[in-house]
Amino acid sequence: MTATKKAVQFSRTGNPADVVEYIDMETAPVGDDDALIDVEAAAINPSHLLTLSGSYGVQPELPAVPGAEGIGIIGEVGKNVTNVKVGDRVMIPPYSGTWRQQVVVKASDIAVMFPEEGDPVQMAMIMANPPTAWLLLKSVVDLEPGDWVIQNAGNSAVGQYVMQLAGIYGLKTVNVVRREGLEDFVTAAGGDVCAVDGPDLGERVKAATGGAPIKLAIDAVAGEATQHLADCLADGGTIANYGLLSKQPCQVWPDDIIFREITLTGVWLTLWLRKYSTPEERHAVYSELAGYIAEGRMHAAVEATYPLSQIKEAVTHAARGERNGKVILLPNSEG
Amino acid sequence: MTATKKAVQFSRTGNPADVVEYIDMETAPVGDDDALIDVEAAAINPSHLLTLSGSYGVQPELPAVPGAEGIGIIGEVGKNVTNVKVGDRVMIPPYSGTWRQQVVVKASDIAVMFPEEGDPVQMAMIMANPPTAWLLLKSVVDLEPGDWVIQNAGNSAVGQYVMQLAGIYGLKTVNVVRREGLEDFVTAAGGDVCAVDGPDLGERVKAATGGAPIKLAIDAVAGEATQHLADCLADGGTIANYGLLSKQPCQVWPDDIIFREITLTGVWLTLWLRKYSTPEERHAVYSELAGYIAEGRMHAAVEATYPLSQIKEAVTHAARGERNGKVILLPNSEG
Repeated sequence: MTATKKAVQFSRTGNPADVVEYIDMETAPVGDDDALIDVEAAAINPSHLLTLSGSYGVQPELPAVPGAEGIGIIGEVGKNVTNVKVGDRVMIPPYSGTWRQQVVVKASDIAVMFPEEGDPVQMAMIMANPPTAWLLLKSVVDLEPGDWVIQNAGNSAVGQYVMQLAGIYGLKTVNVVRREGLEDFVTAAGGDVCAVDGPDLGERVKAATGGAPIKLAIDAVAGEATQHLADCLADGGTIANYGLLSKQPCQVWPDDIIFREITLTGVWLTLWLRKYSTPEERHAVYSELAGYIAEGRMHAAVEATYPLSQIKEAVTHAARGERNGKVILLPNSEG
Repeated sequence: MTATKKAVQFSRTGNPADVVEYIDMETAPVGDDDALIDVEAAAINPSHLLTLSGSYGVQPELPAVPGAEGIGIIGEVGKNVTNVKVGDRVMIPPYSGTWRQQVVVKASDIAVMFPEEGDPVQMAMIMANPPTAWLLLKSVVDLEPGDWVIQNAGNSAVGQYVMQLAGIYGLKTVNVVRREGLEDFVTAAGGDVCAVDGPDLGERVKAATGGAPIKLAIDAVAGEATQHLADCLADGGTIANYGLLSKQPCQVWPDDIIFREITLTGVWLTLWLRKYSTPEERHAVYSELAGYIAEGRMHAAVEATYPLSQIKEAVTHAARGERNGKVILLPNSEG
C-alpha cells in the first residue's frame, strides 16, 4: 500500500530558494525491517542551506530530499520490527531527508525515542545542534566544574545549547555576540557573561571574569573573531571552530600560536557520527540530550514555523543573518 | 683576575640598529663552579632582532647582552669544574648573551661539546635552528620514512636544516619559496620538490608529488601562506607554525578546519628547552645535531660575518628580507 505525499526535493545546487522544489512523492514500500514515519517537525539548519548551495563537506547524490534532522510518529512497521511500534515518537535517523511528509527508514537506525508529552518543535532540533554543543564541550579539552568556556555566536541555536549544557555540567560561559542588547537573552539561556565582539574583547572579558583562565574557545564566526577569542584564552588554550558566519578564514596571530601555545582545531558532528563514535556512544549521547530536551532544560529559540508548501519562503527566512531563532518545517500541518 | 673586553649591550628596546651599543665590559669573576668562554662565533637570528625590538615572547631585564647562541673555547675553569677543560670547544649555554668577546657561565650548563676540527661558523648556529627543525619534524605528528612534509620559507636557515634532517630521517620534502630561481638551492640542500608560493600551490604540489598524502606542514610565513599549506595537506593534517615572515595572522578557512580536520598548532624551541624537555633529552638532541653539523650533513648558508665593532651594520644586514644566508658575529676576530 503506497501513498502519494508532499516532499521537498533539489535536483541541482544553487541559491537555496531557487533549487528547492515542492513536489508529490510516492512513499517507499515498507519492507520487513522498515518503519514508516510521519514527519511532525523538521529543522532548517545552516548546514542544510550549505548542502543546497553545494558547499557542504558531504553532498548527496541528486535528486535528493534535503533535511538531516526531524522528529515523527511511527505510522507503520515491517513484520520483523521489534524496537519501535506504531504511535512511537522518534528522532528520524540522520541523512534520511526530512523535508517531507513521510519517510521510510530501516527500523534499526532508529536510536532515539521521545515521550509523547513535550514540544515536538524543540525535539525536532535534537539531531545536529545539541550533540554539536556536547562535542564542543566534551571532546576538545578536559574541563572541570567551575572552568570557564568562551564562545561567539552566543545567540545562535548551538550557542544556546552550549550555555545550557555548560550549566548542566557546572561550567561557566562567556558568550560573545555581534550586537548590543542581548544580555537578557544570554541570561535567560543560562549564560554567565555576555560581551559584544570587538578588538578589545580580551580586556573586557578579563575584567568580567576576574582574570579566570579560559581553556576552551568555541568559534562559529571565523575571520578576526577567531583572534578575538585567542585574546581571551589562557596560555595553552584551544580554539574549536565549527562555523564561518563571517565568511572569512580564521585568523590567529603566530605570536599566540607560538609563544602562548594556542591551538586551532575543528569540530564536525558528521565526522563524529560517521567515523569517531560507536552506535553505543551515539545512543548514550542522544538519550542524555533527549532527556534534557524533554525536561525543558535544553531548548533553542524558534523564530517561525512553515508548512512544507512554503519551502521557498522558509529557506529564505532561514538564510537571513539577523534571526532570533530557528526556522522549523511542520510537514503534516496542512494537506 | 678580570679583563676588560668588548661586548654589545641594549638598554632599551626599539629599532635594533638604534638600540645596540658597542661597549667595554669587565668579564665577570670565574667562580669555583664556573667556566670562562672566549666566544668564537655567534649568530644573529630573527628572534634576537625581535628581542631587541621588544616583541619576542620572553624579554630579558635591561640592560642586557643580546644573543642566545654561539660557540667558544674554554679559557679558564673554576676549581670544582670537571666536565670541561681549558681549550675545549663548546656550545655556549642558551640565554648567556653571546654577542661579546668573553662570557662566564656555570660549567654544569655546558652540555654540548664539539670536536676541534670543523667550521666554527656552522657550529655557532646549533642552538636555535637545528633543534627547531628537529622539533618541527619530531614533536608534532608521527612520521614514517617515505612520508612527505611540506614547508614554506624553504630557503631560510631552519628550512635548510629541515630539508637536511628530513633526508637523514628518510622523509621527503616539498619546499615552498617566495621567488623563482631557488630550485638549485633546494636541490643542493637535499630538498625533493621546490615550489613558488601562490594561491594554486595545492594543485601544483599535488602534481609534483603524485598526490602523495602530506601529514605535516611547517609554516614560517603566516598570512595567506598558511592557507596555501592547508591546501596541500591530506585530511587530518597538521600545520605547525613557528614564524611570521609575512607579518600577518595565520589564515585558514573553516572548511579545512571543520570538514578536513586540519589543525593549526605552534612550535617554539624556548618552551621545549624551558618546560617540555629534561636535561637528558636536551643533551641527546644537541649531541645528535652536533654530530651532523661536525660531519657537514647539516649546514646553513652564511651570507656575511662581522666583527663585534660593526654590530649596527650586522643587525641591519640581518634584518633585510632578501638575504641568502645567516649573518654571523666573530667577536674575537679583531682587537
